[in-house]
Amino acid sequence: MCRNCDYTIHGAQHHFGWDNAIAPVQTVAPGSTILFHCQDSSAGQLGPSSSVADVAALDFSKINPVSGPIFVEGAEPGDALKITLEDFAPRGDGGRGWGWTANIPGFGLLADQFTDPALTLWCYDAATLAPALWGQHGRVPLKPFAGTIGVAQAEPGLHSVVPPRRTGGNLDIRDIAKGTILYLPVEVAGALFSVGDTHAAQGDGEVCGTAIESPMDVMLTLDLVTGANLKMPRFTTPGPVTRHLDTKGYEVTTGIGADLMTGARQAVEQMVDLLCAQHGMAAVDAYMLVSTCGDLRISEIVDMPNWVVSFYFPRSVFE
Amino acid sequence: MCRNCDYTIHGAQHHFGWDNAIAPVQTVAPGSTILFHCQDSSAGQLGPSSSVADVAALDFSKINPVSGPIFVEGAEPGDALKITLEDFAPRGDGGRGWGWTANIPGFGLLADQFTDPALTLWCYDAATLAPALWGQHGRVPLKPFAGTIGVAQAEPGLHSVVPPRRTGGNLDIRDIAKGTILYLPVEVAGALFSVGDTHAAQGDGEVCGTAIESPMDVMLTLDLVTGANLKMPRFTTPGPVTRHLDTKGYEVTTGIGADLMTGARQAVEQMVDLLCAQHGMAAVDAYMLVSTCGDLRISEIVDMPNWVVSFYFPRSVFE
Repeated sequence: MCRNCDYTIHGAQHHFGWDNAIAPVQTVAPGSTILFHCQDSSAGQLGPSSSVADVAALDFSKINPVSGPIFVEGAEPGDALKITLEDFAPRGDGGRGWGWTANIPGFGLLADQFTDPALTLWCYDAATLAPALWGQHGRVPLKPFAGTIGVAQAEPGLHSVVPPRRTGGNLDIRDIAKGTILYLPVEVAGALFSVGDTHAAQGDGEVCGTAIESPMDVMLTLDLVTGANLKMPRFTTPGPVTRHLDTKGYEVTTGIGADLMTGARQAVEQMVDLLCAQHGMAAVDAYMLVSTCGDLRISEIVDMPNWVVSFYFPRSVFE
Repeated sequence: MCRNCDYTIHGAQHHFGWDNAIAPVQTVAPGSTILFHCQDSSAGQLGPSSSVADVAALDFSKINPVSGPIFVEGAEPGDALKITLEDFAPRGDGGRGWGWTANIPGFGLLADQFTDPALTLWCYDAATLAPALWGQHGRVPLKPFAGTIGVAQAEPGLHSVVPPRRTGGNLDIRDIAKGTILYLPVEVAGALFSVGDTHAAQGDGEVCGTAIESPMDVMLTLDLVTGANLKMPRFTTPGPVTRHLDTKGYEVTTGIGADLMTGARQAVEQMVDLLCAQHGMAAVDAYMLVSTCGDLRISEIVDMPNWVVSFYFPRSVFE
């Protein structure tokens, strides 16, 4: 994939959680392009022939490895790290990409309703990235990206990898994909950049808690914007962000009320109900499916005291 | 506009607020197509030559008139009203459409920061709907829709038009546009449908509290789905929903934390700051601009305890 890379970070060069005391695996100059062999978010605990029993047995101390950290020469607190996402290449056997989506008990927007572990396995063409088959009739469009991408926090100690923070991390923003330029606030000298949790597809929200989780090679370039004093991550996309899935329009459900979280839950619940009614699928399967391709949007946040959260499911999956 | 309409509801046939005791202006059979001459959301208090003083003097008892109500024969509680949005035609003088966007003190996502009234006036080609000019260099893509569309509540009495509810109303969902099919839960016999608050353009969130507010003719067809037992509104779009504005990609800011509302505010604040820095505009102007074309999305809602809200501003406005 990377003929013009300056460095390769191999699969074993990863860490669990964020800690600015973790020794860098590589020191690079600004402008360097790096290839990362990212593991999937289970760190190999799940594979193409896993079963739901393997979901139940997951070791959470081994969840979400990130490749790195990379020390960027000259990076200082107050700077922004500028990350250009050059390319993503899902790894597979003989061009056959694979991924998993799971309902992990206790995790996910509707964790109170979906209490049992569940697993969906995907296979797809890693070269063409044609939509992945869902059962016999569904097709989920793919758009690889890095779910976790960030730099170390100033605060000492080991911090869980699960929550994202102003330094990035487990952002799970599905548009941090090929061609996007991401800016992250630097909090420690050298920035200490890491990346992982690669996804072949995810909708806005990642509502069941997982996406199409796939091991992937990621190529990116690190640069600096000195004195940017960024408050939070921001990014620029090079073009449209939904054309891979918007061709047939959307089915949309809504949640309306004084709390955005409740609205989001209502909207997703009703989409699960709608897909079950329209396609005769099990609720947990619908829940996992919509996590890979459905989008949570805030349609209205000003008409006091009720806000509208909408959940958009792309009709192209079944049409 | 409407050669095949069964009825025309004229501008004076409107009401303020929802009340199931308001007498219908028309009784129609399911399947009827109706043309509504909708007023703008100021009910004519603002016009193409208004000034910011007129915003300060707005009479809020005359805000957001809706045309109707329409009694649909046979509609009963438990049914869904199926509304097919056939077409929208902004009204103007000699093809010249107009609209307004205001910062109204006390109203809007950042009302605590933008405390003074402000007004932006727009003019555009009502026939071609080419992007409306913003200053000398900006171009805001247009997509007309109805901000307020709903049916009467079962609960007696007069209810404010401001908050949306499960019966619809002031939903401000920017994709309830031409070709969309909307389903609303019926709570009273005849449904008592009304529509208004037409917008020439709005982003997801309507963050400053107003969109491009324009008087408009709306053509739609009313039908029934008996016994649908819908919990909340839902809709189907006939095709892509963002192609009018996504051609050049997006600038995106984020808000990260344990509260979605705080995250939304952070994301919008940072976009206002970014546009001010990039284009040298006043903050209140950026705030009104992004309300007409920027989108609030929930990027991640499962990585406990921090969620990510993103605000997407279309680069096509300035590129």
